[in-house]
Amino acid sequence: MARAISDIQSFQPVARTLMGPGPSDIYPSVLQSLSKPTLGHLDPLFIGMMDEVKQLLQYAFQTENPFTIAVSAPGSAGMEACFVNLVEPGDTVIVCRNGVFGDRMRENVERCGAHAVMVDDAWGDPVNPEKVEAALKAHPEASIVAFVHAETSTGACSDAQALATLAREHGCLTIVDAVTSLGGVPLKVDEWQLDAVYSGSQKCLSCVPGLSPVTFSPRAIEKMQARTHKVQSWFLDQSLVLGYWSGDGKRSYHHTAPVNSLYALHEALLRLYQEGIENAWQRHRTMHQRLKAGLDNLGIGFVVDEPYRLPQLNAVYIPEGVDDAAVRQHLLNTYNLEIGAGLGDLAGKAWRIGLMGYGARDENIALCLKALEEALR
Amino acid sequence: MARAISDIQSFQPVARTLMGPGPSDIYPSVLQSLSKPTLGHLDPLFIGMMDEVKQLLQYAFQTENPFTIAVSAPGSAGMEACFVNLVEPGDTVIVCRNGVFGDRMRENVERCGAHAVMVDDAWGDPVNPEKVEAALKAHPEASIVAFVHAETSTGACSDAQALATLAREHGCLTIVDAVTSLGGVPLKVDEWQLDAVYSGSQKCLSCVPGLSPVTFSPRAIEKMQARTHKVQSWFLDQSLVLGYWSGDGKRSYHHTAPVNSLYALHEALLRLYQEGIENAWQRHRTMHQRLKAGLDNLGIGFVVDEPYRLPQLNAVYIPEGVDDAAVRQHLLNTYNLEIGAGLGDLAGKAWRIGLMGYGARDENIALCLKALEEALR
Repeated sequence: MARAISDIQSFQPVARTLMGPGPSDIYPSVLQSLSKPTLGHLDPLFIGMMDEVKQLLQYAFQTENPFTIAVSAPGSAGMEACFVNLVEPGDTVIVCRNGVFGDRMRENVERCGAHAVMVDDAWGDPVNPEKVEAALKAHPEASIVAFVHAETSTGACSDAQALATLAREHGCLTIVDAVTSLGGVPLKVDEWQLDAVYSGSQKCLSCVPGLSPVTFSPRAIEKMQARTHKVQSWFLDQSLVLGYWSGDGKRSYHHTAPVNSLYALHEALLRLYQEGIENAWQRHRTMHQRLKAGLDNLGIGFVVDEPYRLPQLNAVYIPEGVDDAAVRQHLLNTYNLEIGAGLGDLAGKAWRIGLMGYGARDENIALCLKALEEALR
Repeated sequence: MARAISDIQSFQPVARTLMGPGPSDIYPSVLQSLSKPTLGHLDPLFIGMMDEVKQLLQYAFQTENPFTIAVSAPGSAGMEACFVNLVEPGDTVIVCRNGVFGDRMRENVERCGAHAVMVDDAWGDPVNPEKVEAALKAHPEASIVAFVHAETSTGACSDAQALATLAREHGCLTIVDAVTSLGGVPLKVDEWQLDAVYSGSQKCLSCVPGLSPVTFSPRAIEKMQARTHKVQSWFLDQSLVLGYWSGDGKRSYHHTAPVNSLYALHEALLRLYQEGIENAWQRHRTMHQRLKAGLDNLGIGFVVDEPYRLPQLNAVYIPEGVDDAAVRQHLLNTYNLEIGAGLGDLAGKAWRIGLMGYGARDENIALCLKALEEALR
């Protein structure tokens, strides 16, 4: 029952430990940065900061793509930005689906008036390159291959480099969902020659939710510039947004940037840079091993086979006879600890335990293991 | 020249007084709320807060529309949400254009594959209801009338009630841009029977930029439900978003809400409720009169005729012989005071002085007048 409006008070959230699929635990300095004084979005000081965000994003994505920015909206808008700018009505797009987000890609392709050729793998499996190759051979008219690097719904990591190589051999560009991979596992946009890559602020970057880092290769820009139809979204039309983020000092007005959220992204990316991205990848692997050892002791098994397991997103089977919701509620109420429920095919069957960014540390693992041990007793 | 990435430090913005067209000065308690601990977007505590945001938004919009939410992106995405959900390919939409944002509405209509019938008025004039009536008579096939209530580019206020009445008499729904009007001048969604209304967080609500409050009437929902084409945007498809904001306790996952920004919106709306919306409207009028008296003394005149002048957005002519950029730079560098440049037809000819929300107070006016007096000497 909603309370009367006159009873509403300033909101005071309790402090939770966030070990779900995101948002992850936020770095304290990132949270603090949010409260810094708001600047105008055309203020030279703010524009200078945006240029630094670009540089730091290039580092995070391991790319020199000049067009590397943050979309002013969550990851699903970043996904849509990639599709609406690169796909035109009548195009054929090969879409790999091994979880929730592959299916969302299909929705995007179809809403662009294009044809989605689906390549299906089981939930928990990585994308199978052989199936993708077969689809490419069967559909020489395809112009894009779209896949999820790190499936947040299952915890499976696909071989982005192999898939991108295949796509290129067949004259296709790639659209890559790196929402959960960026900062958590190796993602090398230039070395792997990925074309349009989007991510989210609230996973392994440990920033607040609401922004979507994206990067576009020169090949992707070329395809955008050769479009024969206007991009269907004005807000996400990257040819307009580019003028806004360009570093030439003449900023054309597009929309009002989410100023304070960008302070937070700047700080989060700086933390990643200062740690060193290889160190961050290694820390995620190390913490995953520690969590895994503890889960083994509790007899809890993984959904994904070891070679494809994401260290930052641990999808594990709920032991038989255990009440999914009751356990999660106990963890939340007793320990202020959030772990994630299963999504889609895995609803009620799996938990998703995130070890993302700042959340990938020993105290979180200890708390989670102890709390689970108690809840399962 | 960009600095080396290794030289990048945590960003430390200076405190500015924001008297441009938005973002406006943020309430200190709103800024502080941003740094509160991030909750998961499916956390029951967060869901309860979202329900309160809905209630407070209904108050701000003066509506009982159940579908009253904040789009997780800036005002231009709120605009697009209204158009892509209500307009279908082949539709005819009457679009009133008396500044920048009417033209952006045309872009939205055309990108929906629909036909925009433009009703033009001069920059600085309000929308002329007689012209709208003539367009409605000439285009009986039109299904929507779209107009800007408070033109941020010129400071002109149009008669939303009269325009909506006309639209209804001709069987049309209305899409209303209330980005700059919400909280600053009377806006009565139910009394005026407006159908789809969008706003922004960073104007008279004095919240950080990045969110777009929207409200849809039952008539608008009916039209959405009768659609024959899928909404072209997955991210902005309100039939999907509705499940996410519904207060029935079963929240279906759509996207990850910008949790901390919503804390800020909650606090900003609470401030508006606690002041009382009529008091807020009156404060904007009073402060406008004080600013106007001072500008009169400086010989600075308004772009918009008195009856249509927005108190919160004062577009004034730059006195002859005065260097536009030099004055704004002086204000920024010497006083940390931001006023807005002219946009579009008014670039180089006008300044836009905002008195929005928390920014509409005596100390801001005194600073602005003193600084302008000095700069013009």
